[in-house]
Amino acid sequence: MKNFRLYIPTDIHFGNDRLDELPEILAEYGKKVLLTYGGGSIKRTGLYDKISDLLDEAGFEVTELSGIAPNPKIDSVRKGVALIRENDIEVILAVGGGSVIDASKVIAGGVYYEGDPWDLVLDNKKMGQAIPIVDVLTLAATGTEMNRNAVISNPETNEKLGTSGWNLIPKASFLDPVNTFSVPKNQTAAGSADILSHLFEQYFNRTKGTDVQDNIAEGLMKAVIKNCPVALENPEDYNARANLMWSSTLALNGIPGNGRSGGWTCHPIEHELSAYYDITHGVGLAILTPRWMKFCVDTDPTTHEKFATYARNVWDVQEKDNEKAAHIGIEKTYHYFKKTTSVPMTLPEVGIADTKLVHEMSEHAVKNGHLGIAPFVPLEVSDVEKIINECFTDMTEF
Amino acid sequence: MKNFRLYIPTDIHFGNDRLDELPEILAEYGKKVLLTYGGGSIKRTGLYDKISDLLDEAGFEVTELSGIAPNPKIDSVRKGVALIRENDIEVILAVGGGSVIDASKVIAGGVYYEGDPWDLVLDNKKMGQAIPIVDVLTLAATGTEMNRNAVISNPETNEKLGTSGWNLIPKASFLDPVNTFSVPKNQTAAGSADILSHLFEQYFNRTKGTDVQDNIAEGLMKAVIKNCPVALENPEDYNARANLMWSSTLALNGIPGNGRSGGWTCHPIEHELSAYYDITHGVGLAILTPRWMKFCVDTDPTTHEKFATYARNVWDVQEKDNEKAAHIGIEKTYHYFKKTTSVPMTLPEVGIADTKLVHEMSEHAVKNGHLGIAPFVPLEVSDVEKIINECFTDMTEF
Repeated sequence: MKNFRLYIPTDIHFGNDRLDELPEILAEYGKKVLLTYGGGSIKRTGLYDKISDLLDEAGFEVTELSGIAPNPKIDSVRKGVALIRENDIEVILAVGGGSVIDASKVIAGGVYYEGDPWDLVLDNKKMGQAIPIVDVLTLAATGTEMNRNAVISNPETNEKLGTSGWNLIPKASFLDPVNTFSVPKNQTAAGSADILSHLFEQYFNRTKGTDVQDNIAEGLMKAVIKNCPVALENPEDYNARANLMWSSTLALNGIPGNGRSGGWTCHPIEHELSAYYDITHGVGLAILTPRWMKFCVDTDPTTHEKFATYARNVWDVQEKDNEKAAHIGIEKTYHYFKKTTSVPMTLPEVGIADTKLVHEMSEHAVKNGHLGIAPFVPLEVSDVEKIINECFTDMTEF
Repeated sequence: MKNFRLYIPTDIHFGNDRLDELPEILAEYGKKVLLTYGGGSIKRTGLYDKISDLLDEAGFEVTELSGIAPNPKIDSVRKGVALIRENDIEVILAVGGGSVIDASKVIAGGVYYEGDPWDLVLDNKKMGQAIPIVDVLTLAATGTEMNRNAVISNPETNEKLGTSGWNLIPKASFLDPVNTFSVPKNQTAAGSADILSHLFEQYFNRTKGTDVQDNIAEGLMKAVIKNCPVALENPEDYNARANLMWSSTLALNGIPGNGRSGGWTCHPIEHELSAYYDITHGVGLAILTPRWMKFCVDTDPTTHEKFATYARNVWDVQEKDNEKAAHIGIEKTYHYFKKTTSVPMTLPEVGIADTKLVHEMSEHAVKNGHLGIAPFVPLEVSDVEKIINECFTDMTEF
């Protein structure tokens, strides 16, 4: 096990019907609030009205930034920074999923930075102070509600990059599974794929002696795999939604990953797909994951043991031979996404029709994701091209 | 899943050779430090010298409170409060295991309380502000290094009781597995039994829909069960010590338990054994646990499914029948403590020779632990007597 720091001071308010606690929490940081949200689904569900009423009653002065899109754009961040400066905002209340919270984080940091906030995405060493963020989560997926990370896109440069800062960790997060009842099936499945991918990225690594982290990651994988289909079948199953929501938070708050070394793989590659084609992040991850797994097992026998352990502990595969067990685990992963949760599992199904940008995206992925040195299996540009090219057709061999 | 709050702002510095980070962390809270520790093992290992040198070099003004005993006594707390008031202490540095940190917590709260600090143990609603605590952990067991709880004994009244307060959570904890290399075998085994018991107390409950918590608890149990014998065999196996240490912290920081209802059972009963006989807490728990499990399975068929799940997921029991699987799981638990980790598994082996106080202890346990209403299987005084009486001889039936 490697040395690590774990610092997750977010005050988690988990459960149904706790918004009455929100005004008191917010008031700790100030009365001038920037309310950030997305495309308006919170208006349809009534969450917007509920929160607005609470804030009005408690005498908050609310400025709004709406329209934060999936794969949140740097333009929204710039707008947010300007609004905060114009209105002397003291605290951000982010109501939404990962996109809204990620944009809010970089807004919060951008306020204390004199230049263009895109600089903070390109170089997280420039990230310093930040104004406090409180959030009300509406999607189980990214885990941003209890960590210091944010991912922002710049459509002008076809870049989608991660940044981070210890001051960006939300002060408090309200996690009410009921707020995810209205999440459509495809977004529920994509969010679950995102959670699983976060766990895979941390689980497949070379550090020895990490039973605690391995067992927790496997346990969270199993919780997601079990509960996602239940939520798809009955979107208002409280316990299924609760398990997905809490898994999403724990999957990326440091606990399954800290103490291990090694970089991520599918995320940096997927960020290129999203940056160039604006596809749903979780869907891109689901498509890439089994192809990446197969590439690892096919090209690097030293990965067989870990993939076999994954197959046995997560999918109950009984096969004794490591290589065979590894392949069965990949097959189960693929069919889980495709059949059990109905995620589109080829790039043409999400509108990426041809391979003309594959080389360019692969170059960017290797560079931005340090794929040549960091991950479980280091990848060259030609390796990434191979993995992406496999995503154009259905998998028939595992 | 039930509603819950999770707030664990302790800044965890996990890993070897990080004490150079300590002065900067401490200095955030002040330069006048109360250094608390136990019976002097930190002097034998050199940890005391190392910390003293660091604090001297950085210009801290250090007052010492030593001699904090296992099952820490209220007298140590009273002394600590007096020392803080006399010396205008700004921060406590606790160096030791759960006893030292627990005593330090109640000292920290006692400073802000005008009456006798025992009042804060009897009634945690009286716990208010506290001075900050930073700790250097030397034993993997109680989990106090990342939570708001403390257990204090009062030998005058034969009471050992828990208290808590949000302000008692350590500000920072230094978890260096190397600091546990010198822990003797019997204490290593007892500490591991304590970790397992924390997980059992939270795992065996009636709340439905807690896959996340169940899977995490099972994963931590497996990590402890695997790594304790490795540390017993080779006390300087870094990864074994690291897994035990990190399991102990995670087992009681809220993550395996929050979201479930139901009180604890073996801990309140063991607290009576420790209060009356000052036995090692973890040993008392190991002795009680399989007898308690057998009592549950023998008297309440609604517990069979959960105990069978435990047997299958933690001990790999293949038996299909729930009741039979439950019994096998109990047998495996007993033999793990007795044979694999060599914990004394009867009360006479720890110096409790006769049953004369069993009734009195059982009455106290039911009262102090709310055993009649709270736990997985509610217990009357006669039930507790039965469980304790079973602890005087070896188990032969499971």
